[in-house]
Amino acid sequence: MTSEFDIESRSAAKHRAILAAAEKVFLKSGYDGTSMDEIAALAGVSKQTVYKHFADKERLFSEIILGTTNKIDAVVKQVADKLTDTQDLERDLGLLGREFITTLMNPNLLRLRRLVIATAERMPKVSTAWYEQGFERVLATLASCFQRLTEQRLLMVDDPLLAANHFAGLLLWIPVNQAMFTGGTQIASKVELDRYADAGVRTFLAAYGVKLKPGARRPK
Amino acid sequence: MTSEFDIESRSAAKHRAILAAAEKVFLKSGYDGTSMDEIAALAGVSKQTVYKHFADKERLFSEIILGTTNKIDAVVKQVADKLTDTQDLERDLGLLGREFITTLMNPNLLRLRRLVIATAERMPKVSTAWYEQGFERVLATLASCFQRLTEQRLLMVDDPLLAANHFAGLLLWIPVNQAMFTGGTQIASKVELDRYADAGVRTFLAAYGVKLKPGARRPK
Repeated sequence: MTSEFDIESRSAAKHRAILAAAEKVFLKSGYDGTSMDEIAALAGVSKQTVYKHFADKERLFSEIILGTTNKIDAVVKQVADKLTDTQDLERDLGLLGREFITTLMNPNLLRLRRLVIATAERMPKVSTAWYEQGFERVLATLASCFQRLTEQRLLMVDDPLLAANHFAGLLLWIPVNQAMFTGGTQIASKVELDRYADAGVRTFLAAYGVKLKPGARRPK
Repeated sequence: MTSEFDIESRSAAKHRAILAAAEKVFLKSGYDGTSMDEIAALAGVSKQTVYKHFADKERLFSEIILGTTNKIDAVVKQVADKLTDTQDLERDLGLLGREFITTLMNPNLLRLRRLVIATAERMPKVSTAWYEQGFERVLATLASCFQRLTEQRLLMVDDPLLAANHFAGLLLWIPVNQAMFTGGTQIASKVELDRYADAGVRTFLAAYGVKLKPGARRPK
């Protein structure tokens, strides 16, 4: 006898299998090149099952890209939280910078990003949702972090969201655009990414760091 | 009798007409949605004439997008040159920032940018050419400008190209991504762009400006 729980969990497993298959096909073939047939075949389910879970290709695409925003925000939250009790801001903001850039420069994420931009005029709702729930949410997470550091008198930030924008722009402008424009044929190496992160953090601290008088001690 | 000059100039006029028509069709219909037939019709020439001037759709697209990079670099050069004899760096760098952001946030340019990103995996040569001849060349122009200002002891810049990257990232990260991701449904207003420019320039100067001791005069 099949319990309700089994049905529930089998359905959830199929849902996950369809999403995993769809992500692979979208990354390989782009939005227009992806068919529900291919997704069904790769997931090992019928096309009817795919449509039972996702009304159309756009919803499936939307669920995949919004799923990535949750993961990214979780990573940024985790590294930003480590800064709360920092004893060495330069060092720990440097670590945040390196983890931030590594997370956002994930090659599959960059391909999804390219797909979102490519389809943004046709499906502005999907891409705007990615912008608001991904891009802007990560900036808000950084902004709260900078706000706390300002309250601890470790940073001097008037407008935390603007400072978060500046942080992201300083670190990501080059490597993200390079990856976007070269179609993934040129992706910065880990060493280069660390260099971009370190330089961005240095410039950020030169602009937003607390300037201590020579000999002064940082407030505890 | 038709002189060689007339033939030359008629051919050049057709070349320009085809380019103008192609730009319109690409912007309206995207790369895949554009046909050589439609371009020929809009330009008022035969399809054979289009192919005589451009071997295929990719070359035509390439010539259009590389044409825009020349225009952008010319504008940036022009504003950067004004900084050579600046008597008021904050003011003049502020003006450069506003012109820079206005130029790069031109709605047609943003649509071309989205097209280049969308086709970057399929046509990496075209998009890489745009990256190198557009994106990187503009940064090199800014870098020479910052180098000169450092020699005049108006800025403190160790690595001019890095500083140019930081300048661009501080100013453009937000408005460009907003335009990319929302498919042009949200484009920052002139007032917002000025605000992004001013804030970016302020942060840039806080990081790279010469810190004068109170009461000290800037060197003449």
